[in-house]
Amino acid sequence: MTDQSGPRYRRALIVGAGSGLSAALARRFAAQGMSVALAARNPDKLAPLCADIGAKSFACDAADAAAVAGLFEQVEAGGGAPDVVVYNASGRVRGPVASLDPEAVARALAVSAFGGFLVGQHAARRMLDAGNGAILFTGASASVKGYAESAAFAMGKFALRGLAQSMARELAPKDIHVAHFVIDGGIRSASRPVPADAPDSLLDPEAIAETYLHVLHQPRSAWTSEIELRPWVERF
Amino acid sequence: MTDQSGPRYRRALIVGAGSGLSAALARRFAAQGMSVALAARNPDKLAPLCADIGAKSFACDAADAAAVAGLFEQVEAGGGAPDVVVYNASGRVRGPVASLDPEAVARALAVSAFGGFLVGQHAARRMLDAGNGAILFTGASASVKGYAESAAFAMGKFALRGLAQSMARELAPKDIHVAHFVIDGGIRSASRPVPADAPDSLLDPEAIAETYLHVLHQPRSAWTSEIELRPWVERF
Amino acid sequence: MTDQSGPRYRRALIVGAGSGLSAALARRFAAQGMSVALAARNPDKLAPLCADIGAKSFACDAADAAAVAGLFEQVEAGGGAPDVVVYNASGRVRGPVASLDPEAVARALAVSAFGGFLVGQHAARRMLDAGNGAILFTGASASVKGYAESAAFAMGKFALRGLAQSMARELAPKDIHVAHFVIDGGIRSASRPVPADAPDSLLDPEAIAETYLHVLHQPRSAWTSEIELRPWVERF
Amino acid sequence: MTDQSGPRYRRALIVGAGSGLSAALARRFAAQGMSVALAARNPDKLAPLCADIGAKSFACDAADAAAVAGLFEQVEAGGGAPDVVVYNASGRVRGPVASLDPEAVARALAVSAFGGFLVGQHAARRMLDAGNGAILFTGASASVKGYAESAAFAMGKFALRGLAQSMARELAPKDIHVAHFVIDGGIRSASRPVPADAPDSLLDPEAIAETYLHVLHQPRSAWTSEIELRPWVERF
Repeated sequence: MTDQSGPRYRRALIVGAGSGLSAALARRFAAQGMSVALAARNPDKLAPLCADIGAKSFACDAADAAAVAGLFEQVEAGGGAPDVVVYNASGRVRGPVASLDPEAVARALAVSAFGGFLVGQHAARRMLDAGNGAILFTGASASVKGYAESAAFAMGKFALRGLAQSMARELAPKDIHVAHFVIDGGIRSASRPVPADAPDSLLDPEAIAETYLHVLHQPRSAWTSEIELRPWVERF
Repeated sequence: MTDQSGPRYRRALIVGAGSGLSAALARRFAAQGMSVALAARNPDKLAPLCADIGAKSFACDAADAAAVAGLFEQVEAGGGAPDVVVYNASGRVRGPVASLDPEAVARALAVSAFGGFLVGQHAARRMLDAGNGAILFTGASASVKGYAESAAFAMGKFALRGLAQSMARELAPKDIHVAHFVIDGGIRSASRPVPADAPDSLLDPEAIAETYLHVLHQPRSAWTSEIELRPWVERF
Repeated sequence: MTDQSGPRYRRALIVGAGSGLSAALARRFAAQGMSVALAARNPDKLAPLCADIGAKSFACDAADAAAVAGLFEQVEAGGGAPDVVVYNASGRVRGPVASLDPEAVARALAVSAFGGFLVGQHAARRMLDAGNGAILFTGASASVKGYAESAAFAMGKFALRGLAQSMARELAPKDIHVAHFVIDGGIRSASRPVPADAPDSLLDPEAIAETYLHVLHQPRSAWTSEIELRPWVERF
Repeated sequence: MTDQSGPRYRRALIVGAGSGLSAALARRFAAQGMSVALAARNPDKLAPLCADIGAKSFACDAADAAAVAGLFEQVEAGGGAPDVVVYNASGRVRGPVASLDPEAVARALAVSAFGGFLVGQHAARRMLDAGNGAILFTGASASVKGYAESAAFAMGKFALRGLAQSMARELAPKDIHVAHFVIDGGIRSASRPVPADAPDSLLDPEAIAETYLHVLHQPRSAWTSEIELRPWVERF
């Protein structure tokens, strides 16, 4: 349980790392005493965070099978296979379906969904060997509702949810906890501050991270496989 | 957040109290420093728990409008209106739909759903006055899937979920957090022990309570309105 | 199949009959050569329709167990047990959850959901004896989404969907087709005409009836258990 | 309406054509007086069907953007842009998630989902020009539930459903009817006959086609955007 126990897991890998939710997760995991590895296409931007919490960063295109294989090898070599893996990358292209660029759609689908598969597969292999672990997928409003002029994002996020469900059903009996988080609202960030006249109307990354952490602490008799989070004033 | 902060809420009322989940919730709330009131049709059975944690118990048929009104008046008079209300009562009758006793079905629907409305309504009134609060509804597998030979339970649990959704949409912008928990599996109890050859195959009431507590601690920028919990080996 | 075959069923009973969808269903069933019985709390209003299509009408409070039992006896005595039963009644009360009248909520829940159980149970008994039949439940947007200030309707319609699912799972293998229709939009009527500047923005009862009829004609290798219908311009 | 009216649409294109559902659709459309075009990776197998109903066949890899563009150009040149387009292709690879071949998963996702986007996009362009049309997507049990050892199929079918929802929300107000069919069970075929001891336990392609046709005939005041079909004895 959250208060009494120490951390159940020890080594986290977050794929699709940037300055928002992933940074909050990294800080929270580190504060629990976990080692943290971060992967991004351009890891340079992660340097201050890594310095701050003693994390390592890796360059990785999550949609590239060889790159993901290499990432897991490097992380494993550097300190052991991760027992917590978060997939946080996504690709988005907006606009009327008739005018979307097919290559951009293919790329968005690859980043949102195929990358989730690649990362989930490598995570699963290590965790099956180890006998336990947790794989967390970050979803969005678009995971459960396909919005107009957002076909590519709907495809990617629906696909990621299908992957999470399939992996949860397959891996739970092997003591691997797979969970899908439906983040139903905008996330507060430096470039998207909370409007003064609408307090708490954007999700606080720290608060989301707290719920991820709670799910990680759940004992296996009471696992969550899907949970939604939204600001109090969000329409749904 | 769970670790750093003190309790956000101070007075809990649990309706439909017995020896399982509700007792675990009561203990957990009391351990947080909250005052706890428990309501049940027959509160005698609650005496040891009440003595243990300093809780008060009340006799109340949750499906009886006058009784629920009286319950809230008594609780309020005894220490203030509750800012956390849990609805945990349900009625169940099994069997082929053609042979169910209509009175038993009406009673099951009244306990599972109408009682939830009555309790939710009184809770909402106090919380609207106070300007905040949390209302938690306990659901089941039957909340999201209607099983054969279980028409009455499906009706009641679906209805309770509809109530929870409606209240969440209506009350969230008024700073009242409404959440629905889909408990998808059997709960361990004295009369239903975990089989020795299937460890953790029944939900641990303490673990469920921990997740209820986590949801209570969520800041309003990142509220959960529905969450599912199930044992690692449960089919779904 | 629709075009080649004659009607699969011969005797329809529609409970919750009025001037809208139920009248369109009655006309369509009669046009197929089926006998039609209509039940309403006040059947007087049904006289013109009955005269028109040779249907019989019956007074029945669908939420009253004895009245529903009597209805089925009368219908059966008058021409045989129905092999198609449509449950079309619902009760609605709107307003903030804190100010709803509990008696009105209880009544709404009884009409929307408990009446569906009573009618479904009597229908199932006859159809189990006969070895086949179809039971159709009319749902609404509120069947799948609980709206603010509409707690009672959400409860009733969610409950009816739970009933439909449970009965579908239980009765399908006994050759009884149970289907639930999510009518997601307003229905055109004399008192609610289609706005001139928004053509086809309200559901045409004739069009809904056509889909009910299609479902009735489905062979049992390809049954629909849930289908949604909405106007082309409806938000969802 | 089905019985009275002639066909609303005149030119159908079915992508992902073979011997099962697509052949039944082709025959049914042709019987309605529609012209029919069929696309498959290997169209040779379609020759007998084409001869039989006067349809044209085209070679097309649905996951190849240039090939799909060429397909629509050819079809348009040969008799006009289609006003009904059915996407029926899917890719499947089974096995434990840890041992799936990433290339096979990528290919499955491309065929199940990206091809649906490509075909849907070209269809939408023509229909937006024409001012109406219908796009039908064939889903599966895996569209709404991710099964163990079937991650790739779950990803593809979930993604296709997300696409269908997004396109339905975007295009319905432009008089383009987008519908998603959840085929929840096995389909009868020459290689998969119905077991003698389980009559009607596999979906009859003719029966599925009848429901597709019904949806095509729906007037726009009462459109279906999602419908499920399953055999009477299927577990769900």
